Order: sequence, then structure tokens, then C-alpha cells
Amino acid sequence: MLALRFDGSAPHVEKIDVPEPQRGEALVRVRRAGICSTDLEIAKGYMGFHGTLGHEFVGEVIAHPDDSWVGRRVVAEINLACGSCERCAQGLGRHCATRTVMGILGKDGCFAEHITLPTANLHPVPESVSDDLAVFAEPLAAAFEILEQVRIDPSWRIAVLGDGKLGSLVTMVLAHTGAQLTLVGRHEHKLARLGDLARTALAADELPADFDLVVEATGSPEGFARARGLLRPRGTLVLKSTFFGETKIDMAPLVIDEITLVGSRCGPFDPALRALAARRVDPSVLIEETFALTDGVEALTRASQRGVAKVLLAPPGN
Amino acid sequence: MLALRFDGSAPHVEKIDVPEPQRGEALVRVRRAGICSTDLEIAKGYMGFHGTLGHEFVGEVIAHPDDSWVGRRVVAEINLACGSCERCAQGLGRHCATRTVMGILGKDGCFAEHITLPTANLHPVPESVSDDLAVFAEPLAAAFEILEQVRIDPSWRIAVLGDGKLGSLVTMVLAHTGAQLTLVGRHEHKLARLGDLARTALAADELPADFDLVVEATGSPEGFARARGLLRPRGTLVLKSTFFGETKIDMAPLVIDEITLVGSRCGPFDPALRALAARRVDPSVLIEETFALTDGVEALTRASQRGVAKVLLAPPGN
Repeated sequence: MLALRFDGSAPHVEKIDVPEPQRGEALVRVRRAGICSTDLEIAKGYMGFHGTLGHEFVGEVIAHPDDSWVGRRVVAEINLACGSCERCAQGLGRHCATRTVMGILGKDGCFAEHITLPTANLHPVPESVSDDLAVFAEPLAAAFEILEQVRIDPSWRIAVLGDGKLGSLVTMVLAHTGAQLTLVGRHEHKLARLGDLARTALAADELPADFDLVVEATGSPEGFARARGLLRPRGTLVLKSTFFGETKIDMAPLVIDEITLVGSRCGPFDPALRALAARRVDPSVLIEETFALTDGVEALTRASQRGVAKVLLAPPGN
Repeated sequence: MLALRFDGSAPHVEKIDVPEPQRGEALVRVRRAGICSTDLEIAKGYMGFHGTLGHEFVGEVIAHPDDSWVGRRVVAEINLACGSCERCAQGLGRHCATRTVMGILGKDGCFAEHITLPTANLHPVPESVSDDLAVFAEPLAAAFEILEQVRIDPSWRIAVLGDGKLGSLVTMVLAHTGAQLTLVGRHEHKLARLGDLARTALAADELPADFDLVVEATGSPEGFARARGLLRPRGTLVLKSTFFGETKIDMAPLVIDEITLVGSRCGPFDPALRALAARRVDPSVLIEETFALTDGVEALTRASQRGVAKVLLAPPGN
């Protein structure tokens, strides 16, 4: 089968064997996959990952120990947990210390014709959700993670910093909280694509430092200071983007203003799938272009261009 | 009256006029005051404060527009709020943007024979609480602030990092949560003075990285990394000590492990006074020595010596 892989030098499409499902695993034929900023970082060597890239996809189960799974359309959680440690017992398999992570850590990803996955990771996709939209289940779940971590008061003023894919999905999710929402970005056309879901502001605008919650989704180290600058005392800053390297932080003002910082990563799939099925969110405005998997390298290049939204990959036959 | 003051060069005791109460203010005769690490920082020039030092005290109201206050023993909140802004309306006068702060920001402190304070800042001290213990109301309130900010699960493992005054008070407060508590410090004798309130560990000991909550109360920039290292994924780190200058932080692991950081400063006086009155906490083990206010400079020197606990000041006639 074809797979878009990274071996430490440069990403490339190659032909490899179809993976063998292990005990309890499904073999899934990939129908559509999505390129995330993290994939671009990994393809530059971050995490030291070698193997098939990719962790956002929708596919069809083509082999499973339980026949009732065969033929079902699925998306999948990216963390493969041990299932038996203290974290896993608490329902926090996403934080299992010995986890592997699809396309990120010790487990081949989904930029391929097929992938194997434990049944525990699979979520059937409702009929009404198209392949193109189902690909957003994973990043949308990451946006819902904020609601799992922070109790949001509907009277709050919330700012989302970053008008990229993640910031836009976060805005779509937080728009349902009833809070007064402002999306802050650098591009008029990106701010415009969310319609009237949120007030918008250009990053250069003067905004008052009175937001109750600020979500940092810029993906840049400068985002932290800008997000911090928008918070009222006792406000909460959700760190949604992973950027690498050290940031210098003066901690005293965080203590004096009693700021709460919340690191936020992967989230729950069920609310994401429900929101997609009920069309409470519509990430289709974020789709930039679909490439054939054979053109995977070109797709990565396209995805890494400034201002480009979600680039999708279609394996042969899809 | 005598006052221990700082004018930008060196702290010194001098004779100044007894302050005139403003409209709605009480004139309070100071009976006992306590030296806090923040005072030592301020006496080195931090915050650019000039005036009478000190913010922990117990005193007696000797003049007040409402006679019923006269003769009452009181402690006082250190933040003098405007009372009319959005923060104040939310009950967050401690974060009022135009606040002054006793002995810290634009308001003379309590290392003096007298101090004037708004009635809103005063808390009567229960009969059963001695002057020496009442002095701890303010730092004890700061320890209770953690309970106002973080919902503590009694099944949690909690580590308090720092066996100084603040870490010890935090330990006394958290000991009542039912959680499994470990106080981590550098000095056997300091760890020992809390009796069996908490398990103890020397900072050099190997502790597992599985604490649900870690309170950083070391007062040193290295404390952050050490506290971080003790947390489980999804754990909470309360930043209780203010140290000045920038700390380099790699933010990505905070996001990946979904860590929550909570800056924590001043807290509610009522729970602190109730705990002192009911003897649920006993900070008397933290009293090092009492100096006459006339020896205030010597008292500051003593308080700044390594390993020294709470140094108290007694104005003349107390």
C-alpha cells in the first residue's frame, strides 16, 4: 500500500506492506485524512518520530475480530493506551505513560491506504457526517477539551487568539457557550470565514485587558504574552498550541493577578461527532484543498504555506 | 510615633506624625506585627515602595466614626479597594486596578505605632485568639486562598514544596482536606515542627511524579521546575511564592501533560480567623522571636537570615 512517511530526512510517499492487525485490532481502510500543523512539525524532525505520518482521518473497518464492525465508517482516538495503569483506570488513557500516539509516537499514522487500530480507539461516524467533515473529529475533539477542563460562565468575555484551523474550531465550539466571544487574528479573510459566530478583531487592534478567558491558539511563542495581556485579574489562559523551545515568563505577575494557565491537548470524540452530526459546527469552511495521497509531499508543502487552511489527503479509490 | 520605614536607600526607624484617619477610616493602635518575606524584598527596593513597611498585624481601634468599633481588636485586609469598579462589584477588591496595598503599594504599612484603615478592611479578632496568633491571619488567609481557587479532591496526593513560613501555613490548612499530604523541604527541624500534619520528605529525596496538586512555596526560581517535576499529567500547580525576574519555561510539556498553573496571592480572612479561633491550626510553632519596634532594623536582619521563621514586632507599650 502507499504511505506518506518520514524517516528523519524528508517526507516521501513509498509502498509498504499492509499492516497486520494485532489481537483486538481492526484493519481500517483510510477514506480521507487531514494534515495538522503538528504533522508539519513532525516532518521537520520534532518528536524524533519515524514512520507513517498523520493522525486525523476517517476510514472504513475492513477486518475485525467482531464481524459487526466490518463495513462501519470510523474515526479514531490518536492515543493508544495500555488500558491497565492508574491513568487508564481514571479514564485518562490520553495521558497513559506508556501510550503510543498515531503518527506521533511509536505508532504508524493514517497518511496511508490502511491503518490498524485497537477497537477501544474507534468511534463510528454518524451517517449524516460526510468524510470531509469527519476528518475534523479529532481537532474538534481537541477544541471540546477546553469545555472538559474549564467551567465556562456564560456571562464571560472570551478571546480566542489565532485565526488558523485550531483557533477557528475553538471559536465554533465556544460560540455555543453563550459567552461574549472575540476571535483575534491577523487576516481579514480568515476572520470573515466564521461569519457571525464571534466578534472579530485584528491582532493589532487595541483590546481591553478584561477577558475572563483567553485561548492561545496562534502556534507562535509570541502568542503567550499577547494572550496574557488580554486577561483580567483572576482570568484563565488556555494554552492550546504547542510550540517548541523555551519561553521566558515573569511569574510574579501571574501570582499577583492570580492567573490560571491550563495546558490543553486532545479531547473527547463523542461531543465532536454529535456537534458535526447536528451541524452545530461546520468546519467545511476550513477546507483548503484535497490532494491524492500519491501527491502527499506536495500536500505537506501546500499545508505549510502561510495562510493555508486544512489540506486533505485522499488515498487511491476515494 | 515610631515607624519602620524605607525610602529607597535603607530601612530605618524614625519618628513621624500619627496618621489622620480619612473619611470612613479607623485609627488603629498596632499591638503586634509580623515580618513577611515580601517585606524583606520591599526593603531591598522591589515594587519601588517608599513609606512605612509591613502588612501583617493585629491592633486595637482607638478612633472610628462609629463608636461601637472603638476598643475592638482587629486584623485587616491589606488591599485598599476603590469599592466601585467591576472587580470590586464582583467581591474581588483584592484585584481592584486602582487599589493601594498596605506597606506594599501607595499606603503606609503597619510597622508603626498607629495605622489608619478603611472600615471595609477590618476584621474583629475573636477573644480566644492571642495577639501573637492573630498576626498570622493575613498569611493564613493567603493559604486559604488555595481552597478558594482549587476544588481539592480528598483522594488526592498533594505536595507542598517549601518548609518555610508560607509552606508551613499551607500545610496546616491543607491538612484538613483529607488529602494525602507531603511537605517537601530542605531542613529536618522545619519539617519536624509540623508534627504529624503531613508526611515529610527532604527535597533531595526521590519522589514519584504522581502528585495531583503541588503547591510551590519555596520562594526560589528553582521551585517551579521542581514542583512541575512532581506532578502527574492533568495535575495542578499552585504558584504561591512571588520571586522576581524571568523564568525560562518550555511550554510544550505543559500542553502535552495538560498541566494547570494557578497563581495565588491574598486570601479570605474569615476562614483564617475561624481556624485560629477553633485551634484547627497552630502557627505558634512558627514564631522565631519578638523584637521591639525600636529594634526594627535588627528585626529585619534577623528575619532575612536563612532558616529563620516568623519574626514579630512589638510597638512600645505592648
